[in-house]
Amino acid sequence: MEWKIVGVIAAVCTTSGFIPQIIRGIRTKRLDDVSPVMYLLFIFGISLWLSYGVYLEDKIIIVANAVTLAFSVFILVLRYKYMKQR
Amino acid sequence: MEWKIVGVIAAVCTTSGFIPQIIRGIRTKRLDDVSPVMYLLFIFGISLWLSYGVYLEDKIIIVANAVTLAFSVFILVLRYKYMKQR
Repeated sequence: MEWKIVGVIAAVCTTSGFIPQIIRGIRTKRLDDVSPVMYLLFIFGISLWLSYGVYLEDKIIIVANAVTLAFSVFILVLRYKYMKQR
Repeated sequence: MEWKIVGVIAAVCTTSGFIPQIIRGIRTKRLDDVSPVMYLLFIFGISLWLSYGVYLEDKIIIVANAVTLAFSVFILVLRYKYMKQR
């Protein structure tokens, strides 16, 4: 079994998992129930994963975490945008 | 610089990130804005990360993902519990 493929599929799932959250937020214009503390911890943690990936020179870790970081920041920004609009 | 520590702190942040989401859900008894598709993708992806950790025999990956998996399942269960109660 090629375990690297398992890692790639795992990374794709946990990274792309944020896409349905973004779509849901844009559709309902509401992200109130989403915890901002969760996303702040994520942004901090994922930044560390990213730097860890740079240190390891592991492209999978770098790309997966760079994309996840962008998604997390976007969700947090959307949340405050929609809260402000009401 | 001890890069293993960076990895541990990163894992602690991304795993414990789910705790404020659980606390928020229990407090507001509402998780409607949280995307169920996101959590389903997470549960699948984290299960793969867990098996990858078992293959690598890496305790940090195993523990972090086992805890994250439990948190993700719990959030999804809470979401449906609160939706059903209304």
